[in-house]
Amino acid sequence: RRQAAEEMAEEVEGTVHEMMEPALALLPAATTVADAVAFLRAHATPQQITYLYVTGVDDRLIGMIVFRDLLLAEPEETLAEVMLPDPFAIPVDMEVTDAIKAALHRHYPVYPVVDSEQHVVGVIRGWRLFERQAMEISAQSGQMVGVDKEERLATTFWSAFRMRHPWLQVNLLTAFLAGFVVSMFEGTISQIVALAAFLPILAGQSGNTGCQALAITLRGITLGDIEKFPVAGLVRKEVMLGAMNGLFTGVVAGLAMWWTASRGGNADAMLLGLVIVLAMVGSCMMSGMFGVLVPITLRRFGADPATASSIFLTTGTDIAGMGLMLFLATTLVL
Amino acid sequence: RRQAAEEMAEEVEGTVHEMMEPALALLPAATTVADAVAFLRAHATPQQITYLYVTGVDDRLIGMIVFRDLLLAEPEETLAEVMLPDPFAIPVDMEVTDAIKAALHRHYPVYPVVDSEQHVVGVIRGWRLFERQAMEISAQSGQMVGVDKEERLATTFWSAFRMRHPWLQVNLLTAFLAGFVVSMFEGTISQIVALAAFLPILAGQSGNTGCQALAITLRGITLGDIEKFPVAGLVRKEVMLGAMNGLFTGVVAGLAMWWTASRGGNADAMLLGLVIVLAMVGSCMMSGMFGVLVPITLRRFGADPATASSIFLTTGTDIAGMGLMLFLATTLVL
Repeated sequence: RRQAAEEMAEEVEGTVHEMMEPALALLPAATTVADAVAFLRAHATPQQITYLYVTGVDDRLIGMIVFRDLLLAEPEETLAEVMLPDPFAIPVDMEVTDAIKAALHRHYPVYPVVDSEQHVVGVIRGWRLFERQAMEISAQSGQMVGVDKEERLATTFWSAFRMRHPWLQVNLLTAFLAGFVVSMFEGTISQIVALAAFLPILAGQSGNTGCQALAITLRGITLGDIEKFPVAGLVRKEVMLGAMNGLFTGVVAGLAMWWTASRGGNADAMLLGLVIVLAMVGSCMMSGMFGVLVPITLRRFGADPATASSIFLTTGTDIAGMGLMLFLATTLVL
Repeated sequence: RRQAAEEMAEEVEGTVHEMMEPALALLPAATTVADAVAFLRAHATPQQITYLYVTGVDDRLIGMIVFRDLLLAEPEETLAEVMLPDPFAIPVDMEVTDAIKAALHRHYPVYPVVDSEQHVVGVIRGWRLFERQAMEISAQSGQMVGVDKEERLATTFWSAFRMRHPWLQVNLLTAFLAGFVVSMFEGTISQIVALAAFLPILAGQSGNTGCQALAITLRGITLGDIEKFPVAGLVRKEVMLGAMNGLFTGVVAGLAMWWTASRGGNADAMLLGLVIVLAMVGSCMMSGMFGVLVPITLRRFGADPATASSIFLTTGTDIAGMGLMLFLATTLVL
């Protein structure tokens, strides 16, 4: 099992070479249609041949033949006359992810694979590229929280532990940063204990708001939409959405704080409610911004834009959000 | 734009009917190969024809013809002799998601679509089904945090707000439950203020651990692996992973608590550190369990297993985790 998982990882990272099948039908351009049909008739496994590939000088790929065209051609015509010239071919050393992108808008059932001198070295079935793409995308929500993209249900306990644990330690380290910010305001919390219950509420709320922005940005990268939108516009939209979402959830949370605090006899209950509203608006605006910038920054540094993105996002939103709430409470209320 | 988004939503929810193209080549079984070739030659757009479909009594679909077989057949043979009998066909009223599943292991470039009486009413290109599948999967990480699966970068501000906001209010409501649990222990927090900083750390840590389990379970559902594993085994694995991950991150967090508390002159610093370790182990075990059970439960109730799964998950882990920590601190330390 471990070996299978490792092989899979290699494949995902690797070039198209591993996904190739042998090219079964390479014919010189001077071959006649009648001879091509004879070749097919004599072939052991004609049902595995989807296209014929036509070679020219030095055996270089110069064309491809669709059986439909062969059927409509005259027996004495040459393949050079019947072929579709200069067919799209995938270089054998191309990364799988790039091959998927290249094939995405072509939709051929089979692609020829060529070396640097345009010799056909194999073929790749289009569904294999699509299948790989589905596999990659289905890994994304895990990658966001530090799951390796090779992990699946069949992965063993120890492999899963080894792959997931390091990111949990990173998450803890970043949580300490937020915890450190909170501990700087221990004096405030000891005077207004009600704030303690609102720390995880604020963190959870801005974290979820930010993850919404993050997910939409990642989806835009996956589907290629992102190129059509300037980053500044995306940030503006998500910051505004954060402001609106923070305002309407903040008012509800603020009312809850006001009710809690006034029931506890706190004279500043109204002001504390206001602190919650402001903190919620501010932290959701920031989390919207992080939601766009984290995956874009990861990608700019050559990393997978999903990698631990949720961990990086919540670090920022936790520090900013809880820090803001406690700072506002300290300066406005105390 | 709004209309486009609405149309897309309809398509995703709908049947294969919307994805169909006209079937261009339907021929009776008695047609000779020579006549079929003549039919193709006379056709206005032969390059759009991938297979010929063969009809029998009452125009019902009884076979399909691959051009390669037509090429190798004798001109006087009938299509009935050359065809692949009983071809796989997609019912016109089938849900798109079911059609994707049906096509997933067949990999044909084109599928015939039939009505209830086996009349061919159109064809669907395989890449369209794959493309739709990629679209569906890429929506998953957003769905987990309450993003509608039709939302993309191009979705307008107000549409995005309208679709995302309700789940944020749900998230807030569930956060209140956790906040309520915390507020029950206000007496404990006011005596040991250092606990306040560890509330978001614990919530964030068990939330991330649970989201790892959730993502892997969702991936298993998406890729169809889930059927091979009994739920009890998956729960056991994730609970054990939670225990291990909770232990090793818990020890680090416990040391941090011990250091923080003893620096603050707390005589129970060691015991507080132990409380953190135990709370981390317990809450990560529970979050592992929720990570498996939330999507499986959603699916069992007929919902999309990803829908707001992260919101439901963190509700459970927050209540259980912070409640456990404060309960342990109250009973062991005070």
